[in-house]
Amino acid sequence: MTAELIAVGTELLLGNITNTDAQIISEGLSTLGINVHYHTVVGDNPARLEAALDIARSRADIIISTGGLGPTYDDLTKQTICKTFGRELELHQDILDDLKEWFLKRTGKPMTDNNIQQAMLPVNCTIFDNPVGTAPGCAFEEGGVHVLMLPGPPFECRYMFENRAVPYLKKLVGHSVIVSHEIRIFGMGESAVEDVLHEPMTRLTNPTLAPYAKPNECMLRATAKADTEAQAEAMLAPLVERVKATLGDVVYGVDVASLEEAVSGLLLERGLTLSAAESCTGGLIAKRMTDLPGASKVFRGGVVSYVEEVKSGVLGVPEDLLARYGAVSEPVARAMAEGCRRICGSDLAVSVTGVAGPDTDDRGNEVGTVYIALTSTEGTVCKKLSCGRGLGRDSVRMAAASNAFDMVRRQLLGLPL
Amino acid sequence: MTAELIAVGTELLLGNITNTDAQIISEGLSTLGINVHYHTVVGDNPARLEAALDIARSRADIIISTGGLGPTYDDLTKQTICKTFGRELELHQDILDDLKEWFLKRTGKPMTDNNIQQAMLPVNCTIFDNPVGTAPGCAFEEGGVHVLMLPGPPFECRYMFENRAVPYLKKLVGHSVIVSHEIRIFGMGESAVEDVLHEPMTRLTNPTLAPYAKPNECMLRATAKADTEAQAEAMLAPLVERVKATLGDVVYGVDVASLEEAVSGLLLERGLTLSAAESCTGGLIAKRMTDLPGASKVFRGGVVSYVEEVKSGVLGVPEDLLARYGAVSEPVARAMAEGCRRICGSDLAVSVTGVAGPDTDDRGNEVGTVYIALTSTEGTVCKKLSCGRGLGRDSVRMAAASNAFDMVRRQLLGLPL
Repeated sequence: MTAELIAVGTELLLGNITNTDAQIISEGLSTLGINVHYHTVVGDNPARLEAALDIARSRADIIISTGGLGPTYDDLTKQTICKTFGRELELHQDILDDLKEWFLKRTGKPMTDNNIQQAMLPVNCTIFDNPVGTAPGCAFEEGGVHVLMLPGPPFECRYMFENRAVPYLKKLVGHSVIVSHEIRIFGMGESAVEDVLHEPMTRLTNPTLAPYAKPNECMLRATAKADTEAQAEAMLAPLVERVKATLGDVVYGVDVASLEEAVSGLLLERGLTLSAAESCTGGLIAKRMTDLPGASKVFRGGVVSYVEEVKSGVLGVPEDLLARYGAVSEPVARAMAEGCRRICGSDLAVSVTGVAGPDTDDRGNEVGTVYIALTSTEGTVCKKLSCGRGLGRDSVRMAAASNAFDMVRRQLLGLPL
Repeated sequence: MTAELIAVGTELLLGNITNTDAQIISEGLSTLGINVHYHTVVGDNPARLEAALDIARSRADIIISTGGLGPTYDDLTKQTICKTFGRELELHQDILDDLKEWFLKRTGKPMTDNNIQQAMLPVNCTIFDNPVGTAPGCAFEEGGVHVLMLPGPPFECRYMFENRAVPYLKKLVGHSVIVSHEIRIFGMGESAVEDVLHEPMTRLTNPTLAPYAKPNECMLRATAKADTEAQAEAMLAPLVERVKATLGDVVYGVDVASLEEAVSGLLLERGLTLSAAESCTGGLIAKRMTDLPGASKVFRGGVVSYVEEVKSGVLGVPEDLLARYGAVSEPVARAMAEGCRRICGSDLAVSVTGVAGPDTDDRGNEVGTVYIALTSTEGTVCKKLSCGRGLGRDSVRMAAASNAFDMVRRQLLGLPL
């Protein structure tokens, strides 16, 4: 079965809000094994909504609308859908009585008349009562097409989808399930990944393997449809193993959200702690580590040494090293990491010093030149990056931080840096 | 003129991501006076994309596609648009050479052949070169319909829309110019702003005044259409003055990108420097300051003291203060700021210690309890925030950092904290 989502609301077309309802519903439909072929967004305009409905009914088995069920003059979804599908609206006295009571309780005033339209529903529909708002939703079938209407506010939409629409849809689809796993990759670009995995990516139909580019890294999603979750997992396991075997140690995790989450997991497993001395990344490594709840178990903190005096005064980088090699150099990166490990008392410390841009530094180091050092009981190692011109300041900083996390990961796993 | 956005990507239909590109572009088009009637989302499927394009060209003057310009087999937007509009693709050798150089520099390896399609562009198109990614965008006109193609990753899409598509579209919408000013507000919510400015927001048609909620703050955009820029500016000046007079010192800037940018400007003006001692914000203040190019002129660095030993050992917070009051307390916040100013040698230092969540701390401080201290030659001040339950970890951290910046701003301007 295929579905189309139609979001109704001029605020979406003006860019005031994002269509998060579409994500909530699409994710749920995917789990039910219902293929979504289109999302459409249309304003509070009956003629254009009618046109969108005519197109949708010609190409989808299920239409789910969000928004436009409320009491105001621009809430026209129900009326327009009923006109398009040739249904009458009828008043539900029990819903009207509930609404009146709700208003009196909530506001202390009698309900205004414009709310009556919320108690009007299509003849012969399934009513989706709404305990988290005032506008009920509903569903009906007409000419083989199922039409479901849900309220627009994301909180109401999510509740009504999960608790009202999903049970309705489950009866329609039987019981096939969809399961996905995300394979995270750092150190190999999307096109190189596709090059070595072209055959499973293009040939497979179930399970499937699809690539996604992320800032500084890429991700593969393996997805299987089956009758049960166990069957889907059994189909996915060999595919995930094959990808890992093909790509090797650039795969940093499966169903892990980020490099820092992978690093944090490894540190926790081994009972080790990390700290960071940051120059060009300016706190980004610390920020990314502490984005994770419970970070204090593995991350002790660090120093942002944005000027030389902080590198020498706080991190203890010898002034003659700074004078001789400049702040963007291997000896300084090493001394920063070692100083940071000492003052923060961590097991490992990572440091970053480089040129984020927009300009080259006073020693002529190009934008994107970054030194990353990592120190532990096993000594200190250092790596030089050339992120390349053309990358913006933000991208150089993100790339430097990600490379630092990858160095920590590789060190902890005994992989080549 | 009317526009339709077509986002291409199966990951949108699977609910893996939200269509934020549509919001970015819709907001920009609205400022240009271009009406958006529909958003469409379609998967990486040529037949369905072709159907969507046929519908769009029948009802819009401008079609903007996002996504599907990359190197992999499922990147089919350019090919499908060209097929639908009867255009050939041609190879641009200069783009290909740049791509090859980029790959060699970035990865140290030769470019894989699947990237060649990124150098293929429609015959007779306007090329949108992409300095923030590998896939260029483009635009052409066919039968009175303008088709613009932008990359899908939101950071690339935003850059390419603002710097490539907007100049192209400005020429289309004629010689009447549209000028906007963004009035930035911190410390007053969108609904409160709307309450005191309801009349100009609803009554004015040119110039207009529209509110936008942003994380932790809000923004008003004043927009005027006129024949010349000078006329538009003359229409805007009294409106902007009126808003500033009505809202008072919660307005932190006009056409300033962020609180940290406002703070950075004030520090630069006065020749002062700042440093930051961060506990719960974990580097976010430093990261936001150093997001700005040239930050080293005003920001010396700081310490992320995520565990107590770093607060005492590096920042010199007396251990008995930590033992007596706990890490989340006014005395510790004050000592952190003072220690940070001393070791970083800055004119001002700000500190943050609090509970970002998800759990209360071991002294029973609720999530969202944050102390912010600010120290300078004039002494030390401290402010307690209760960001409130119900806010997530990220929001508490963002709110704490923004409040810290606002304290610095108020101190520098002699406003009440």
